[in-house]
Amino acid sequence: MTLTSPGPTLGVVGGGQLGRMLAEAAAPLGVEVVVSDPTPDAPAAPVARDQVVGDFDDPETVRELAERADYLTFEIELADPDLLERVAAETDTPVHPDPETLRIIEDKLVQKRRLAEAGVPVPEFREVNSADELRAALEDLGYPAMLKARKGGYDGRGNVPVESPADVEDAFAEIVDAAQGGTPADPAGVAMVEEMVAFERELAVMGCLGSAVHGEGVPERDTFPVTETIHEEEILRETVSPPRADAAVRERARNVALDVLDVMEGRGVYGIELFETTDGEILLNEIAPRPHNSGHWTIEGCHTSQFEQHVRAVTRRPLGTTDRRAPTVSANILGDVEERQAATLSGEDEVFEAPRAHLHWYGKREVYRLRKMGHVTHVGRGDVDREELLADVRELRDGLTFGE
Amino acid sequence: MTLTSPGPTLGVVGGGQLGRMLAEAAAPLGVEVVVSDPTPDAPAAPVARDQVVGDFDDPETVRELAERADYLTFEIELADPDLLERVAAETDTPVHPDPETLRIIEDKLVQKRRLAEAGVPVPEFREVNSADELRAALEDLGYPAMLKARKGGYDGRGNVPVESPADVEDAFAEIVDAAQGGTPADPAGVAMVEEMVAFERELAVMGCLGSAVHGEGVPERDTFPVTETIHEEEILRETVSPPRADAAVRERARNVALDVLDVMEGRGVYGIELFETTDGEILLNEIAPRPHNSGHWTIEGCHTSQFEQHVRAVTRRPLGTTDRRAPTVSANILGDVEERQAATLSGEDEVFEAPRAHLHWYGKREVYRLRKMGHVTHVGRGDVDREELLADVRELRDGLTFGE
Repeated sequence: MTLTSPGPTLGVVGGGQLGRMLAEAAAPLGVEVVVSDPTPDAPAAPVARDQVVGDFDDPETVRELAERADYLTFEIELADPDLLERVAAETDTPVHPDPETLRIIEDKLVQKRRLAEAGVPVPEFREVNSADELRAALEDLGYPAMLKARKGGYDGRGNVPVESPADVEDAFAEIVDAAQGGTPADPAGVAMVEEMVAFERELAVMGCLGSAVHGEGVPERDTFPVTETIHEEEILRETVSPPRADAAVRERARNVALDVLDVMEGRGVYGIELFETTDGEILLNEIAPRPHNSGHWTIEGCHTSQFEQHVRAVTRRPLGTTDRRAPTVSANILGDVEERQAATLSGEDEVFEAPRAHLHWYGKREVYRLRKMGHVTHVGRGDVDREELLADVRELRDGLTFGE
Repeated sequence: MTLTSPGPTLGVVGGGQLGRMLAEAAAPLGVEVVVSDPTPDAPAAPVARDQVVGDFDDPETVRELAERADYLTFEIELADPDLLERVAAETDTPVHPDPETLRIIEDKLVQKRRLAEAGVPVPEFREVNSADELRAALEDLGYPAMLKARKGGYDGRGNVPVESPADVEDAFAEIVDAAQGGTPADPAGVAMVEEMVAFERELAVMGCLGSAVHGEGVPERDTFPVTETIHEEEILRETVSPPRADAAVRERARNVALDVLDVMEGRGVYGIELFETTDGEILLNEIAPRPHNSGHWTIEGCHTSQFEQHVRAVTRRPLGTTDRRAPTVSANILGDVEERQAATLSGEDEVFEAPRAHLHWYGKREVYRLRKMGHVTHVGRGDVDREELLADVRELRDGLTFGE
């Protein structure tokens, strides 16, 4: 390939923080980024070449994006696979990952079935199309269990725990309300239920699929080092890399991630979320066909970040090394206010003052409770203690507030 | 301070590669960048919020930039200090470094005098306002010597070596032609001459001046680790950090840089170019009041890059640590064509394929001989041999071409 100016343009459906960090990573490589997003002046806009304003599934928006781009990708699962496939064909613009992968992933039931068929270890699950089916399934799986909207859930939205038989009716009504598609009168296709996994910790692996055209030693399939993820209220709070899990568990996690990649189609990075069960087994939790919050630490923690890797993969460049540079932790900056309001963060000087701490601000105009507004990464030195590193980044994060 | 969305806007006079890398570094900090540059769609434009198109010294352009900015800086010495000072006062926009520093630096004779007065070791130099004065000066300094345009020179432009008395007339005519201001009929104020320093190697130090308002442990005056710079035809080709100089020399270089910083006014980073003489002494060569090519390696080689440091300093944030993460070398990608032409670079896949090599493409539309088009950084691991690292980055750089 060659590098030109202006370089190739990467069209990204979605202009949130992932689009922003993709644009930050694309610039040094000479790749220009145009994003599409319904919110004018979305987070990615100030660092991208341009933004097309329109809904993720609006045909005219996606078509305009494709016409301006040499390669298409998406940073949000709300992208419409049929539309992407049609526009890609009409405008002769390659889209990666393949929309077929988006189809598999966007429906959690289809995702789990495909992965189970491929031999990937997954929690026990059942399709449930009514409260009665849910009750029947739980006689088998046992209580508590996790009822999930098949489509449209993220950051814990669309997940409802079911503690006992008394919860079944309410939980099912709630999931029908939260899910994409389906109505109380006709809830078929809306939900699935999974056993509640007793886990020791959660892990995540950023997987990468590249292309086969490059030189010897350039992998087509690779993973970043396994990362520990810490959630609260089902929202990611911190990551720890390397994780506090033993080497055998990390190796198993990497192998499960590689098996997952065999089911995925198309180039790009994939966020693969895993459970380490209390008996040291690995079970797949969920997959995101895009850069993922659990990989933000790679910006400082690895030689190639997940964002650079995604840009490389989609634009058909060789994948970069996924080696870790140093032990690294990250902590999300979440909205800590009750009312939606203009975003003004205090306490960030302490982050700037801390050696080897890095602030990433997403540029969102408004903050609301638990909204992801930025993150702090903290890089350790050779002999660093991870517990200390994690305590440090939590202290820095806890010093930040959107309140008075 | 607080972080808001949109964040503070940094106005940068100049939208070349330095402006581009400033914008790349500003994004994660939530600082928006607007640049001014006479070339429409300058290198920084695709990654900055916006570009004001106009000359560096055009009052309307600089005024528009200031009106859109919360802080002003410059990435090019062609910025006009009087104009910056006036516009900053009129629009109440702080400009850093102080225009007074630009005044000192833009005239190499004034620069050398001020630094010599402050006790900074500099090569022997003389003001020369005619060919006769040049001849007289060289009877004292000896041949060969370096005749320099006092204003407007960079990357070797405006420097003319004088080998023998027979060269004096031609050399002086050439410098009058190359310099800003002055005419063959009235060449006063145009030139200075310096002894040709017998140096072992060239070194550079990126110095940083911050503000005094921050917490304990945050320096107001700091330097990045000393770097070795390798020039050919007076254009920087490679950097090596740490340099192949002994610890005592590196310490002397750092101390000279700290003394230089005492003469500078205003926040920001300063590129300080030094000679290590054959007897191990340090002499100041030149200063740039801005991020500098000799500090590009800090993007991957340090926890805080020179660009992030400049953004932090100018926007009154605490300075970051200047610790080096790993031995790091860089090599410039220069135009290797004879005719000015559209830029198409071949061979970059080998850079992408090399582990721990990083390509930085500046997005310039056209290439000409020796134009700076990008750079390659190569990061070593703990036990790496610097000679090997330098050989590797040269091989990667030499594999790149704008030719057929």
